[in-house]
Amino acid sequence: MNQTVPVIGIVGGGQLAQMMYQEAIALGLSVKFLAGAPEDPVVTLSPNVTFGSPHDSDALTQFAQTVDVLTFDHELVNLTTLETLENTGLAVRPSSRALSHATDKWQQRTTFAALGLPLPAFINVQTLDDIEQFGATTSWPVVLKAQRGGYDGRGVWIVNDIAEARTVMDEAMAHGLTLYAEELIALNEEIAILVARDINGNAVTYPLVHSVQENGICRETLVLANDSSPIVGEAKALALQIAEALDVCGVMAVEMFVSNGRVLINEIATRPHNTGHYSIEGAVTSQFANHLRAVAGLPLGPTTPTAPAIAMVNVLGGARSFTEKEYAQALAVDGAHVHMYGKAWRPGRKLGHVTVCAETPELARARAHEAAALLETRKS
Amino acid sequence: MNQTVPVIGIVGGGQLAQMMYQEAIALGLSVKFLAGAPEDPVVTLSPNVTFGSPHDSDALTQFAQTVDVLTFDHELVNLTTLETLENTGLAVRPSSRALSHATDKWQQRTTFAALGLPLPAFINVQTLDDIEQFGATTSWPVVLKAQRGGYDGRGVWIVNDIAEARTVMDEAMAHGLTLYAEELIALNEEIAILVARDINGNAVTYPLVHSVQENGICRETLVLANDSSPIVGEAKALALQIAEALDVCGVMAVEMFVSNGRVLINEIATRPHNTGHYSIEGAVTSQFANHLRAVAGLPLGPTTPTAPAIAMVNVLGGARSFTEKEYAQALAVDGAHVHMYGKAWRPGRKLGHVTVCAETPELARARAHEAAALLETRKS
Repeated sequence: MNQTVPVIGIVGGGQLAQMMYQEAIALGLSVKFLAGAPEDPVVTLSPNVTFGSPHDSDALTQFAQTVDVLTFDHELVNLTTLETLENTGLAVRPSSRALSHATDKWQQRTTFAALGLPLPAFINVQTLDDIEQFGATTSWPVVLKAQRGGYDGRGVWIVNDIAEARTVMDEAMAHGLTLYAEELIALNEEIAILVARDINGNAVTYPLVHSVQENGICRETLVLANDSSPIVGEAKALALQIAEALDVCGVMAVEMFVSNGRVLINEIATRPHNTGHYSIEGAVTSQFANHLRAVAGLPLGPTTPTAPAIAMVNVLGGARSFTEKEYAQALAVDGAHVHMYGKAWRPGRKLGHVTVCAETPELARARAHEAAALLETRKS
Repeated sequence: MNQTVPVIGIVGGGQLAQMMYQEAIALGLSVKFLAGAPEDPVVTLSPNVTFGSPHDSDALTQFAQTVDVLTFDHELVNLTTLETLENTGLAVRPSSRALSHATDKWQQRTTFAALGLPLPAFINVQTLDDIEQFGATTSWPVVLKAQRGGYDGRGVWIVNDIAEARTVMDEAMAHGLTLYAEELIALNEEIAILVARDINGNAVTYPLVHSVQENGICRETLVLANDSSPIVGEAKALALQIAEALDVCGVMAVEMFVSNGRVLINEIATRPHNTGHYSIEGAVTSQFANHLRAVAGLPLGPTTPTAPAIAMVNVLGGARSFTEKEYAQALAVDGAHVHMYGKAWRPGRKLGHVTVCAETPELARARAHEAAALLETRKS
C-alpha cells in the first residue's frame, strides 16, 4: 500500500483528525499529523505526530516535506505558506483559496454574492453610520460579525440598537477586528449539506442535515432517509455550486438557514464537519472516509443513509466529569454509538458525540439524548 | 477516560489487533500492544507497542504489568504464564482456561463430548490400529488432526486408507505431534456463530454466518437479516452453552458443520474471528467493539444486522501486488468497504477483506467478489 498510495499529512490533531485516522487505518493509508499541543487527541493514538504551530511557516514547510498530500483538521493555517507550497507543486487539498473562504467570512460573503447565491442582506462596516443606515433599512436587531477571526472566542454579536452597536464596534476596533453587518433573519430552521469532491471534480452530496444550535455550538443533528423537506433539492444544488466555484477537494460543509421557506447560506467549512459526524454509522461512506479518499486521489464512496433516521447529539462537558458507571450506562443505551475524543473534561467542551440509527426520528433522538445526558452528568 | 476505564493490553499485533484498535479509539479506551514482529500492522499505527514473544514468560509478565486487562489477538500464548498472572489477580480476558480450549483441539473435543454437544465421531490415536479400527467403524476416508499445533502450518489431514494414515502418523510422530481421528462428515454447509459475553456472564449472539472455506482458509461469509435456515436456533443455543461452559469473556466464534440437517461443532476461537469481520459495517455493534466492551467490563451492544444481506470476502495475495489503479477500482465498486491490514503482499496471504451490505445476498456477494478480485489481480 505505502508504495502506491500517497502519504497524507493532516494539519491539526483534534477530533476530526482522530476520526480521519480511524478511517485511514481501514483504507491502509499512511497518515502523519502536525499537532499543535501535547494534549491533542492524536498524540496518544499515532506514532507519526510532529508538533508545530500551523501558523509557523517553518513548521508547516518542514511537515509538508515529509508527505505527498496536505490536508486539514481545521482552517486556521498560514495561508501564505500554503500558497508557496502549492507553487512548489505540493498537493494541498483543499487548496489555500478554498481554505481562505472558510476563514475569511467577508471574502466568503462577497464571493457568494458575486455568484448570485441567496444570502442574508449584509454590508461592510466602516463607520457606525453604516450600521445605523443598515438597521434603518433592514430593521433592528442587526447581526455584527468579525470579517476574520474574533476575540475571546467570539466573532458574532446581535445588537438591538445603535448604542449596543457602538459598544461592540469600539471593542472590535480595540482588538483590530473589521466588522460587517448582516440582517437578523426570521429563522425556521438551520440545515447543512455536506459535499465530497474528488481531484477530478466529481462531487457527491450527503443527505440534508437538520441541525439544532445552542449558543453557537452544534447540539444535535438529524438525518432522514426519506426527507420530505421541500428545500432538499435547492440546498444540494447550492452546496454543489459552491464546491465547484471554490474547486474544493475533500469534504465541505455548507451551513444554511431556512427562513420563510427560503434557503439562505450561512457559512462553509472546507473539511469534515460536526454536522457530518452522524455519517460514521449513518452513511455507507462516512465523511471522514470520503475526505481521505478525495485528498488521496481515490474515488468517492456512496453517501446513502444506512437507516430511516439517524440522530447525532454532541457530548459537552457537564458540571463534572462522568464516572465509569455513567459511561457504562451510556453504552448500554440501545444502539448508542459513543465516540469519545480523548479530551480532558471541561464544562461546555465538546468531549465526544453519540449517534443512533433507528426506524423513527423520535427513537433515534430519544436514545442519542439519553446517552449524551448520562455523559453530561445530567438527567435526560 | 483514562482515569476511569482500564488500560487494555492486547497480546499480538495482527489485523485483529488493528481492527480492535479502530474501535478502541472511538470508545476512548487506552490500548497497548505486545507485538511479535516489526512488520505487525499495529507497529505503524500506535505509539504504544512493545515487542516480545507471547511465548516468553518475561516479556508477557513485563507487558502485563503495564496494563489493567490482558486480551488477545491470537491464542498462541504462554498459558502457564497467564495462569500465574491470573493468580496474582490480573484480569486475563478470556481466561487461560478458555484459551487452552482454543489451542488444544483434543481438550476441546473431550470437554465438548463431556457436555454432550453434537460432534463428529472421534477417537484418540495412540497406534495405527486405532485408526484402522476407526476407519472400519465409521468408513474411510478418515480425518487426522494434531491434538495441539501442527507443522509447516498444517494440522489436518484427510487419509483414504491405512497406508496414507501410516505416512501421516510417521511424519506427525517425527514432529512430536499427537493425533486424533475424526469422522469425515458429509458436509452440507459450514456455518459460524459469534458470541459476545461480558464479565457478568451476560451473553449475546450474532446472526448465523454462512461461510465458504477454501483450502482451510475462510474465503467468504454471508449474513442474512432474515435467515430461514432451520438450524439457527440450535446453532445459537450451542454457542451460548459453550461460552458459558468455558466462562468466556469477550468474543468467541464457534465454527460448525451442517451435515444431513444436523449441526456438529467443528472448532472454536476465543477472540474476534474472520467470520465476524462483516460486523464492522454489518452489525450495530461490531465484534471488535463488543470484544473490547466485554474485556473492559463495559456492557455489550446490540448485534442486530444493519442490512438485509451482508457479504464479506477475504482479499488473498494474488499473483502480484495490486496497483494503485486496481485499488481505486476496488474502492469504486458500489458499497464496497475495503479493509487493508497493512501487510506486505505475498501470494495467498490474507491482506484484507471487503464487506458489502445490500438488499439481496446476490448483490452483496457479487459486489464484494468484484472488489476482492481487483485486489487479488484476477478477473472476478
